Amino acid sequence: MPLVRISLRAGKSADYKRKIGDAVHRALVEAANVPPLDRFQIITEHDETALIYDAQYLDIKRTDDILLIQISFNQGRTLEIKKTLFARIAGLLHDETGIRKEDVFIGLIEVPPENWSFGNGEAQYAK
Amino acid sequence: MPLVRISLRAGKSADYKRKIGDAVHRALVEAANVPPLDRFQIITEHDETALIYDAQYLDIKRTDDILLIQISFNQGRTLEIKKTLFARIAGLLHDETGIRKEDVFIGLIEVPPENWSFGNGEAQYAK
Amino acid sequence: MPLVRISLRAGKSADYKRKIGDAVHRALVEAANVPPLDRFQIITEHDETALIYDAQYLDIKRTDDILLIQISFNQGRTLEIKKTLFARIAGLLHDETGIRKEDVFIGLIEVPPENWSFGNGEAQYAK
Repeated sequence: MPLVRISLRAGKSADYKRKIGDAVHRALVEAANVPPLDRFQIITEHDETALIYDAQYLDIKRTDDILLIQISFNQGRTLEIKKTLFARIAGLLHDETGIRKEDVFIGLIEVPPENWSFGNGEAQYAK
Repeated sequence: MPLVRISLRAGKSADYKRKIGDAVHRALVEAANVPPLDRFQIITEHDETALIYDAQYLDIKRTDDILLIQISFNQGRTLEIKKTLFARIAGLLHDETGIRKEDVFIGLIEVPPENWSFGNGEAQYAK
Repeated sequence: MPLVRISLRAGKSADYKRKIGDAVHRALVEAANVPPLDRFQIITEHDETALIYDAQYLDIKRTDDILLIQISFNQGRTLEIKKTLFARIAGLLHDETGIRKEDVFIGLIEVPPENWSFGNGEAQYAK
Protein backbone atom coordinates (compact mmCIF):
# COMPACT_ATOMS: atom_id res chain seq x y z
CA MET A 1 0.00 0.00 0.00
CA PRO A 2 2.60 2.54 0.47
CA LEU A 3 3.31 3.79 -3.03
CA VAL A 4 6.74 5.32 -2.64
CA ARG A 5 8.36 7.71 -5.11
CA ILE A 6 12.03 8.41 -4.56
CA SER A 7 13.72 11.03 -6.73
CA LEU A 8 17.47 11.60 -6.82
CA ARG A 9 20.14 13.18 -8.96
CA ALA A 10 21.30 10.93 -11.78
CA GLY A 11 24.55 9.00 -11.74
CA LYS A 12 24.16 6.59 -8.86
CA SER A 13 24.74 2.84 -9.17
CA ALA A 14 22.07 0.18 -9.24
CA ASP A 15 23.43 -1.09 -5.93
CA TYR A 16 23.05 2.34 -4.35
CA LYS A 17 19.46 2.63 -5.54
CA ARG A 18 18.67 -0.84 -4.25
CA LYS A 19 20.03 0.06 -0.82
CA ILE A 20 17.96 3.23 -0.77
CA GLY A 21 14.78 1.39 -1.64
CA ASP A 22 15.55 -1.29 0.93
CA ALA A 23 16.17 1.23 3.70
CA VAL A 24 13.00 3.23 3.05
CA HIS A 25 10.91 0.08 2.98
CA ARG A 26 12.48 -1.32 6.12
CA ALA A 27 11.74 1.94 7.92
CA LEU A 28 8.09 1.75 6.89
CA VAL A 29 7.86 -1.80 8.20
CA GLU A 30 9.66 -1.11 11.47
CA ALA A 31 8.22 2.31 12.30
CA ALA A 32 4.83 2.50 10.60
CA ASN A 33 3.46 -1.02 10.78
CA VAL A 34 3.59 -1.61 7.02
CA PRO A 35 3.43 -5.31 6.10
CA PRO A 36 6.88 -6.57 5.01
CA LEU A 37 5.65 -7.71 1.60
CA ASP A 38 3.71 -4.52 0.93
CA ARG A 39 6.41 -2.91 -1.19
CA PHE A 40 5.83 -0.78 -4.26
CA GLN A 41 8.46 1.81 -5.16
CA ILE A 42 9.43 4.00 -8.07
CA ILE A 43 12.95 5.42 -8.05
CA THR A 44 13.68 8.11 -10.62
CA GLU A 45 16.91 9.89 -11.53
CA HIS A 46 17.08 13.47 -12.74
CA ASP A 47 19.84 15.78 -13.93
CA GLU A 48 20.60 19.12 -12.29
CA THR A 49 18.12 20.98 -14.51
CA ALA A 50 15.30 18.66 -13.45
CA LEU A 51 15.67 18.07 -9.72
CA ILE A 52 15.80 21.41 -7.96
CA TYR A 53 16.25 21.88 -4.22
CA ASP A 54 17.13 24.64 -1.85
CA ALA A 55 20.52 23.99 -0.27
CA GLN A 56 19.80 25.71 3.06
CA TYR A 57 16.07 26.04 3.82
CA LEU A 58 15.46 25.82 7.59
CA ASP A 59 19.24 25.96 8.04
CA ILE A 60 19.60 22.40 6.84
CA LYS A 61 22.56 22.04 4.48
CA ARG A 62 21.62 19.93 1.47
CA THR A 63 23.84 18.52 -1.28
CA ASP A 64 23.40 16.89 -4.67
CA ASP A 65 22.94 13.60 -2.83
CA ILE A 66 19.47 14.81 -1.84
CA LEU A 67 16.58 12.38 -1.90
CA LEU A 68 13.03 13.62 -2.43
CA ILE A 69 10.81 10.89 -1.01
CA GLN A 70 7.02 11.00 -1.40
CA ILE A 71 5.02 8.30 0.33
CA SER A 72 1.30 7.68 -0.26
CA PHE A 73 -0.21 5.42 2.39
CA ASN A 74 -3.20 4.89 4.64
CA GLN A 75 -4.41 7.70 6.85
CA GLY A 76 -4.65 7.40 10.60
CA ARG A 77 -1.05 7.26 11.73
CA THR A 78 -0.37 9.46 14.75
CA LEU A 79 2.10 12.30 14.86
CA GLU A 80 4.27 10.12 17.07
CA ILE A 81 4.37 7.41 14.42
CA LYS A 82 5.14 9.94 11.70
CA LYS A 83 8.00 11.35 13.73
CA THR A 84 9.36 7.87 14.35
CA LEU A 85 9.03 7.06 10.66
CA PHE A 86 10.92 10.17 9.56
CA ALA A 87 13.71 9.44 12.02
CA ARG A 88 13.92 5.79 10.99
CA ILE A 89 14.01 6.57 7.27
CA ALA A 90 16.83 9.07 7.68
CA GLY A 91 18.64 6.86 10.17
CA LEU A 92 18.54 3.71 8.07
CA LEU A 93 19.46 5.57 4.91
CA HIS A 94 22.48 6.98 6.70
CA ASP A 95 23.47 3.65 8.20
CA GLU A 96 23.08 1.65 5.00
CA THR A 97 24.34 4.09 2.37
CA GLY A 98 26.24 6.81 4.21
CA ILE A 99 23.85 9.47 2.97
CA ARG A 100 23.71 12.55 5.16
CA LYS A 101 20.47 12.85 7.14
CA GLU A 102 20.25 16.47 5.99
CA ASP A 103 19.75 15.17 2.45
CA VAL A 104 16.59 13.21 3.24
CA PHE A 105 13.43 15.14 2.30
CA ILE A 106 10.12 13.36 2.94
CA GLY A 107 6.50 14.16 2.19
CA LEU A 108 3.51 12.02 3.17
CA ILE A 109 0.15 11.78 1.40
CA GLU A 110 -2.58 10.00 3.37
CA VAL A 111 -5.61 8.31 1.84
CA PRO A 112 -8.40 6.05 3.15
CA PRO A 113 -7.76 2.28 2.95
CA GLU A 114 -10.49 1.82 0.35
CA ASN A 115 -8.42 3.82 -2.13
CA TRP A 116 -6.09 0.93 -2.97
CA SER A 117 -6.34 -1.99 -5.31
CA PHE A 118 -3.47 -4.48 -5.08
CA GLY A 119 -4.54 -6.41 -8.15
CA ASN A 120 -7.50 -8.27 -9.61
CA GLY A 121 -9.55 -5.08 -9.71
CA GLU A 122 -10.57 -5.42 -6.08
CA ALA A 123 -10.41 -3.00 -3.14
CA GLN A 124 -8.63 -5.37 -0.78
CA TYR A 125 -8.44 -2.93 2.13
CA ALA A 126 -12.05 -1.73 1.99
CA LYS A 127 -14.23 -2.50 5.00
CA MET B 1 -9.32 16.43 -13.78
CA PRO B 2 -8.09 13.05 -13.17
CA LEU B 3 -4.34 13.42 -13.31
CA VAL B 4 -3.24 9.86 -13.96
CA ARG B 5 0.29 8.55 -13.51
CA ILE B 6 0.96 5.10 -14.93
CA SER B 7 4.34 3.50 -14.28
CA LEU B 8 5.53 0.32 -15.97
CA ARG B 9 8.70 -1.59 -16.68
CA ALA B 10 10.54 -0.30 -19.75
CA GLY B 11 10.50 -2.00 -23.11
CA LYS B 12 6.88 -1.83 -24.19
CA SER B 13 5.77 -0.48 -27.57
CA ALA B 14 4.11 2.86 -28.18
CA ASP B 15 0.99 0.98 -29.26
CA TYR B 16 0.91 -0.94 -25.97
CA LYS B 17 1.22 2.26 -23.96
CA ARG B 18 -1.52 3.90 -26.00
CA LYS B 19 -3.85 0.99 -25.32
CA ILE B 20 -3.10 1.18 -21.60
CA GLY B 21 -3.82 4.88 -21.46
CA ASP B 22 -7.01 4.41 -23.47
CA ALA B 23 -8.27 1.61 -21.21
CA VAL B 24 -7.64 3.49 -17.97
CA HIS B 25 -9.35 6.59 -19.29
CA ARG B 26 -12.33 4.66 -20.64
CA ALA B 27 -12.75 3.01 -17.23
CA LEU B 28 -12.78 6.41 -15.53
CA VAL B 29 -15.43 7.65 -17.94
CA GLU B 30 -17.63 4.54 -17.71
CA ALA B 31 -17.29 3.79 -14.01
CA ALA B 32 -16.51 7.09 -12.29
CA ASN B 33 -18.42 9.70 -14.25
CA VAL B 34 -15.32 11.42 -15.61
CA PRO B 35 -16.06 13.60 -18.65
CA PRO B 36 -14.81 11.90 -21.84
CA LEU B 37 -12.56 14.82 -22.79
CA ASP B 38 -11.11 15.19 -19.29
CA ARG B 39 -7.95 13.20 -20.00
CA PHE B 40 -4.50 14.01 -18.64
CA GLN B 41 -2.04 11.14 -18.27
CA ILE B 42 1.65 10.62 -17.71
CA ILE B 43 3.04 7.19 -18.58
CA THR B 44 6.57 6.49 -17.41
CA GLU B 45 8.86 3.52 -18.02
CA HIS B 46 11.44 2.28 -15.54
CA ASP B 47 14.06 -0.44 -15.53
CA GLU B 48 14.17 -3.22 -12.94
CA THR B 49 16.29 -1.17 -10.54
CA ALA B 50 13.75 1.64 -10.56
CA LEU B 51 10.29 0.06 -10.44
CA ILE B 52 10.14 -2.29 -7.48
CA TYR B 53 7.14 -4.42 -6.57
CA ASP B 54 6.40 -7.38 -4.37
CA ALA B 55 5.53 -10.44 -6.48
CA GLN B 56 3.12 -12.04 -3.99
CA TYR B 57 1.72 -9.56 -1.44
CA LEU B 58 -1.85 -10.57 -0.45
CA ASP B 59 -1.31 -13.79 -2.41
CA ILE B 60 -1.60 -11.96 -5.69
CA LYS B 61 1.03 -13.14 -8.16
CA ARG B 62 2.60 -10.20 -9.95
CA THR B 63 4.98 -10.15 -12.91
CA ASP B 64 7.18 -7.64 -14.69
CA ASP B 65 4.12 -6.56 -16.65
CA ILE B 66 2.92 -4.79 -13.51
CA LEU B 67 1.30 -1.39 -13.79
CA LEU B 68 1.43 1.07 -10.91
CA ILE B 69 -1.45 3.47 -11.50
CA GLN B 70 -1.96 6.55 -9.35
CA ILE B 71 -5.06 8.64 -9.99
CA SER B 72 -5.68 12.09 -8.49
CA PHE B 73 -9.29 13.17 -8.85
CA ASN B 74 -12.20 14.84 -7.09
CA GLN B 75 -13.29 13.60 -3.71
CA GLY B 76 -16.78 12.35 -3.00
CA ARG B 77 -16.97 9.10 -4.92
CA THR B 78 -18.58 6.30 -2.90
CA LEU B 79 -16.94 3.02 -2.02
CA GLU B 80 -19.25 1.36 -4.52
CA ILE B 81 -18.01 3.62 -7.30
CA LYS B 82 -14.39 3.03 -6.32
CA LYS B 83 -14.92 -0.75 -6.40
CA THR B 84 -16.58 -0.48 -9.79
CA LEU B 85 -13.73 1.68 -11.04
CA PHE B 86 -11.04 -0.75 -9.87
CA ALA B 87 -12.84 -3.65 -11.53
CA ARG B 88 -13.37 -1.74 -14.74
CA ILE B 89 -9.76 -0.59 -14.99
CA ALA B 90 -8.43 -4.13 -14.51
CA GLY B 91 -11.10 -5.59 -16.77
CA LEU B 92 -10.57 -3.21 -19.66
CA LEU B 93 -6.79 -3.45 -19.38
CA HIS B 94 -7.09 -7.21 -19.59
CA ASP B 95 -9.53 -7.13 -22.49
CA GLU B 96 -7.61 -4.57 -24.53
CA THR B 97 -4.00 -5.57 -23.89
CA GLY B 98 -4.06 -9.06 -22.40
CA ILE B 99 -2.45 -7.84 -19.19
CA ARG B 100 -3.17 -10.07 -16.20
CA LYS B 101 -5.56 -8.46 -13.69
CA GLU B 102 -3.13 -9.44 -10.94
CA ASP B 103 -0.65 -6.98 -12.45
CA VAL B 104 -2.89 -3.93 -12.03
CA PHE B 105 -2.03 -1.91 -8.91
CA ILE B 106 -4.10 1.23 -8.31
CA GLY B 107 -3.97 4.04 -5.78
CA LEU B 108 -6.41 6.94 -5.57
CA ILE B 109 -5.76 10.44 -4.23
CA GLU B 110 -8.84 12.58 -3.67
CA VAL B 111 -8.91 16.37 -3.61
CA PRO B 112 -11.63 19.04 -3.54
CA PRO B 113 -12.83 20.31 -6.94
CA GLU B 114 -11.39 23.76 -6.31
CA ASN B 115 -7.88 22.26 -6.43
CA TRP B 116 -7.77 22.09 -10.23
CA SER B 117 -6.95 24.59 -12.91
CA PHE B 118 -7.48 23.34 -16.47
CA GLY B 119 -5.83 26.34 -18.05
CA ASN B 120 -5.99 30.13 -18.15
CA GLY B 121 -5.08 30.36 -14.48
CA GLU B 122 -8.67 29.80 -13.39
CA ALA B 123 -10.24 27.33 -10.94
CA GLN B 124 -12.88 26.02 -13.32
CA TYR B 125 -14.41 23.54 -10.85
CA ALA B 126 -14.64 25.90 -7.87
CA LYS B 127 -18.13 26.71 -6.62
CA MET C 1 7.32 22.16 1.62
CA PRO C 2 5.68 22.47 -1.65
CA LEU C 3 6.86 19.42 -3.54
CA VAL C 4 6.23 20.44 -7.12
CA ARG C 5 6.15 18.04 -10.08
CA ILE C 6 6.16 19.68 -13.49
CA SER C 7 5.73 17.46 -16.55
CA LEU C 8 6.21 18.65 -20.11
CA ARG C 9 6.81 17.33 -23.59
CA ALA C 10 10.47 16.57 -24.27
CA GLY C 11 12.72 18.79 -26.31
CA LYS C 12 12.89 22.01 -24.35
CA SER C 13 16.15 23.70 -23.36
CA ALA C 14 17.68 23.75 -19.90
CA ASP C 15 17.12 27.50 -19.85
CA TYR C 16 13.42 27.06 -20.60
CA LYS C 17 13.02 24.53 -17.83
CA ARG C 18 14.83 26.81 -15.41
CA LYS C 19 12.50 29.68 -16.24
CA ILE C 20 9.47 27.43 -15.73
CA GLY C 21 10.68 26.27 -12.35
CA ASP C 22 11.51 29.84 -11.35
CA ALA C 23 8.09 31.15 -12.36
CA VAL C 24 6.14 28.44 -10.55
CA HIS C 25 8.15 28.95 -7.39
CA ARG C 26 7.85 32.73 -7.51
CA ALA C 27 4.07 32.38 -7.85
CA LEU C 28 3.95 30.15 -4.78
CA VAL C 29 5.94 32.70 -2.80
CA GLU C 30 3.97 35.73 -3.97
CA ALA C 31 0.47 34.25 -3.96
CA ALA C 32 0.48 31.43 -1.42
CA ASN C 33 2.81 32.60 1.31
CA VAL C 34 5.45 29.94 0.63
CA PRO C 35 8.85 30.81 2.14
CA PRO C 36 11.26 31.92 -0.61
CA LEU C 37 13.82 29.24 0.23
CA ASP C 38 11.23 26.45 0.45
CA ARG C 39 11.80 25.18 -3.07
CA PHE C 40 11.76 21.52 -4.10
CA GLN C 41 10.84 20.72 -7.71
CA ILE C 42 11.01 17.81 -10.10
CA ILE C 43 10.70 18.63 -13.80
CA THR C 44 10.23 15.67 -16.12
CA GLU C 45 10.11 15.45 -19.91
CA HIS C 46 8.00 12.96 -21.82
CA ASP C 47 7.52 12.10 -25.47
CA GLU C 48 4.14 12.17 -27.19
CA THR C 49 3.35 8.57 -26.25
CA ALA C 50 3.90 9.32 -22.56
CA LEU C 51 2.34 12.71 -21.84
CA ILE C 52 -1.27 12.65 -22.98
CA TYR C 53 -3.66 15.59 -22.77
CA ASP C 54 -6.97 16.58 -24.22
CA ALA C 55 -6.56 19.51 -26.60
CA GLN C 56 -9.95 21.10 -25.98
CA TYR C 57 -11.54 20.01 -22.66
CA LEU C 58 -13.67 22.86 -21.23
CA ASP C 59 -13.12 24.70 -24.52
CA ILE C 60 -9.56 25.50 -23.59
CA LYS C 61 -7.23 25.00 -26.55
CA ARG C 62 -4.09 23.17 -25.49
CA THR C 63 -0.89 22.53 -27.45
CA ASP C 64 2.23 20.39 -27.09
CA ASP C 65 3.66 23.15 -24.91
CA ILE C 66 1.32 21.97 -22.15
CA LEU C 67 2.58 21.86 -18.59
CA LEU C 68 1.07 19.42 -16.09
CA ILE C 69 1.89 20.88 -12.68
CA GLN C 70 1.12 18.97 -9.48
CA ILE C 71 1.79 20.75 -6.20
CA SER C 72 1.73 19.05 -2.80
CA PHE C 73 1.64 21.56 0.03
CA ASN C 74 0.08 22.37 3.39
CA GLN C 75 -3.68 22.35 3.75
CA GLY C 76 -5.62 25.38 4.90
CA ARG C 77 -5.30 27.79 2.02
CA THR C 78 -8.59 29.47 1.14
CA LEU C 79 -10.31 29.29 -2.21
CA GLU C 80 -9.34 32.90 -2.75
CA ILE C 81 -5.67 32.07 -2.25
CA LYS C 82 -5.92 29.08 -4.57
CA LYS C 83 -7.52 31.23 -7.27
CA THR C 84 -4.81 33.84 -6.86
CA LEU C 85 -2.16 31.15 -7.02
CA PHE C 86 -3.53 29.64 -10.23
CA ALA C 87 -3.68 33.05 -11.86
CA ARG C 88 -0.19 33.95 -10.73
CA ILE C 89 1.34 30.69 -11.93
CA ALA C 90 -0.20 31.04 -15.38
CA GLY C 91 0.56 34.75 -15.52
CA LEU C 92 4.21 34.48 -14.55
CA LEU C 93 4.76 31.49 -16.83
CA HIS C 94 3.35 33.52 -19.69
CA ASP C 95 5.35 36.61 -18.85
CA GLU C 96 8.65 34.80 -18.34
CA THR C 97 8.54 32.14 -21.05
CA GLY C 98 5.80 33.16 -23.47
CA ILE C 99 3.84 29.99 -22.74
CA ARG C 100 0.10 30.29 -23.46
CA LYS C 101 -2.00 30.41 -20.30
CA GLU C 102 -4.26 27.76 -21.85
CA ASP C 103 -1.34 25.34 -21.64
CA VAL C 104 -0.99 25.56 -17.85
CA PHE C 105 -2.73 22.66 -16.08
CA ILE C 106 -2.47 22.62 -12.28
CA GLY C 107 -3.53 20.19 -9.57
CA LEU C 108 -3.11 20.72 -5.83
CA ILE C 109 -2.71 18.05 -3.15
CA GLU C 110 -3.08 19.31 0.43
CA VAL C 111 -1.59 17.62 3.48
CA PRO C 112 -1.22 18.53 7.17
CA PRO C 113 2.01 20.33 8.14
CA GLU C 114 3.21 17.37 10.20
CA ASN C 115 3.53 15.33 6.98
CA TRP C 116 6.84 16.92 5.97
CA SER C 117 10.42 16.27 6.92
CA PHE C 118 12.92 18.75 5.47
CA GLY C 119 15.94 16.75 6.57
CA ASN C 120 17.53 15.21 9.66
CA GLY C 121 14.59 12.86 10.10
CA GLU C 122 12.55 15.49 11.93
CA ALA C 123 9.01 16.79 11.39
CA GLN C 124 9.95 20.46 11.33
CA TYR C 125 6.42 21.74 10.76
CA ALA C 126 4.69 19.62 13.40
CA LYS C 127 3.10 21.49 16.30
